[in-house]
Amino acid sequence: MNRWRKAQALAASEGIDALLVTPGADLRYLTGYTALPLERLTCLVLPAHGDPTLIVPALEVAAARASGIDVALASWTETEDPFALVTDLVGNAATIGLDDHMWASRVFALKDALPNARQVLAGPLVQQLRIRKEADEIAALREAGQAIDRVHARMGEWLRPGRTEREVGADIARAIIDEGHETVDFVIVGSGPNGASPHHELSDRVIEEGDPVVIDIGGTNHAGYCSDSTRNYLAGGAVPAEYAEFYGVLQAAQQAQLDHAKPGVTAESVDAVGRAIIAEAGFGDRFIHRTGHGIGQETHEEPYIVEGSSLVLEEGMAFSIEPGIYLEGRFGARIEDIVVCTADGLEVLNNQPRELIAL
Amino acid sequence: MNRWRKAQALAASEGIDALLVTPGADLRYLTGYTALPLERLTCLVLPAHGDPTLIVPALEVAAARASGIDVALASWTETEDPFALVTDLVGNAATIGLDDHMWASRVFALKDALPNARQVLAGPLVQQLRIRKEADEIAALREAGQAIDRVHARMGEWLRPGRTEREVGADIARAIIDEGHETVDFVIVGSGPNGASPHHELSDRVIEEGDPVVIDIGGTNHAGYCSDSTRNYLAGGAVPAEYAEFYGVLQAAQQAQLDHAKPGVTAESVDAVGRAIIAEAGFGDRFIHRTGHGIGQETHEEPYIVEGSSLVLEEGMAFSIEPGIYLEGRFGARIEDIVVCTADGLEVLNNQPRELIAL
Repeated sequence: MNRWRKAQALAASEGIDALLVTPGADLRYLTGYTALPLERLTCLVLPAHGDPTLIVPALEVAAARASGIDVALASWTETEDPFALVTDLVGNAATIGLDDHMWASRVFALKDALPNARQVLAGPLVQQLRIRKEADEIAALREAGQAIDRVHARMGEWLRPGRTEREVGADIARAIIDEGHETVDFVIVGSGPNGASPHHELSDRVIEEGDPVVIDIGGTNHAGYCSDSTRNYLAGGAVPAEYAEFYGVLQAAQQAQLDHAKPGVTAESVDAVGRAIIAEAGFGDRFIHRTGHGIGQETHEEPYIVEGSSLVLEEGMAFSIEPGIYLEGRFGARIEDIVVCTADGLEVLNNQPRELIAL
Repeated sequence: MNRWRKAQALAASEGIDALLVTPGADLRYLTGYTALPLERLTCLVLPAHGDPTLIVPALEVAAARASGIDVALASWTETEDPFALVTDLVGNAATIGLDDHMWASRVFALKDALPNARQVLAGPLVQQLRIRKEADEIAALREAGQAIDRVHARMGEWLRPGRTEREVGADIARAIIDEGHETVDFVIVGSGPNGASPHHELSDRVIEEGDPVVIDIGGTNHAGYCSDSTRNYLAGGAVPAEYAEFYGVLQAAQQAQLDHAKPGVTAESVDAVGRAIIAEAGFGDRFIHRTGHGIGQETHEEPYIVEGSSLVLEEGMAFSIEPGIYLEGRFGARIEDIVVCTADGLEVLNNQPRELIAL
């Protein structure tokens, strides 16, 4: 059964009369069509019963057809109202499910077009499908993991004292494309004290000898799947003794999480296993984020590996394991691998050395 | 007056008690903060009166501060509810304005958090500011235009018969970064019949001698501003006589539009000037999209140069002029430049030759 038929069956069982899905990962997942997230309305109308229709601007018709999409198209030209097409297709729906990332402007326009329809989120329903990766999705994630590993393996070509984070980041961005991605999704080069900001990106700070540097990078490959891996580097010189100690704690925590995660354990238990080791070493309040996030056609998706999530891991779930410790004003570190649950264990998709790499 | 204060004044005058702005171009424009569009809530709460607050996940605090943002931060940790912070800040608002691209999941969560607040779109308000570019924004767009022109100037390095669109596209993507962008936003390589699909991206089609090829490319530079330019190439050989004729019509139409656009004329009149020339030559129904879109921190934003828009152009408005003609199954062409209205005329930001370039 193809994916949109599965979503249709779920919608029927949950009492949603139609799913409305605009460009983004859900649309790509359900139909294979990577639509541009632009201002003209593209929207899959997937009724719980009957045939789906993709509403598409006239100038996108050829691109939609070229994607091999297997649903009927209804096109509209620049001076027509695409929301009238939605009304034609599902005018009597009592409940409509909107994709989680649908823009507010469309949510409101749909309220005007279908004033009597109750709006609910379609995301939780589609996520039930997306959260368990199929074999071809795992292969695509594996390929993305190998591509980003090759970028990390080349870090010595670019990262050295005297260069700015931005200069190094530009080189990394080129390599992300060169090594097998179609887009650069993010490049974090956190040198010295900037490593203490988990989502620091690039600054004009000049890297100094003895700086520990956090490099967290990712892109999306031809198949539409994402990579995301973090490693830690020493740009010449020697790190303070305290760094070596705290890095050992982080590595032990991440390894314990890799050893623990597998089908049957809960997401929160994976988080807890690492957090306990970090807390015991006195850094509990310096591990300021969850352990990980699911990954697939989006860099961040279900399942989240976070305190309070009793979700039980299953075969095919793919996510990051990325504990971090951040000492404000001094330095930070994070080790991140993407993993996927196999039938009875874990396949680790990133395999560059996890220790601090001295360049 | 800084930008968020201007937005605040507009909100007060329009009876909106608070603007809620999540990551995206509006947030960047109002605060200078390029927040990651991730699942944890980041949201600027900008009341019509009083001080704004940026709600931000704990792990993003350092990145937000590093952006130089001049508003107070309210952070939340992984197990806290960020929407409770919104309620604390604007619990008694009668009307809240949500950014146009806010995710449906947040629109609904805000409905739950503030059940008595009427939700309206904030986009039209912020667009009143964004639509007129300031001098530093025009400088950034000019720089982006020159960068993408340098990529077009190098097309002969990559585009030749025997290579696939995807191979050529990968080379172009690298060059977009090399020539001065931080991200690759899109790469369209429409060879032969694929040129008849305006938003065709990349396929495995092998480019043949004599193929006309539409190349439409863009990225975002360090300053956060976008480039977008289309040129047409001949990959060796000779084109059919009919192509030369229809290309002449297209070039005349685009030139007429460049000559016409300036402060005081309407958006629809710019569209009409080119459409008339194309229609007169018998290709009216083959120009299947509007003439252009505004550009700034987003590739597509106000003003749209489209039939039915009586918007009067003003100094500082930046947009594309990109008529196209598409002959399904055969070939297509589009010529696109970004322009910005000066006090009494037009500055054209893309300046590579507009004729068909034989490589």
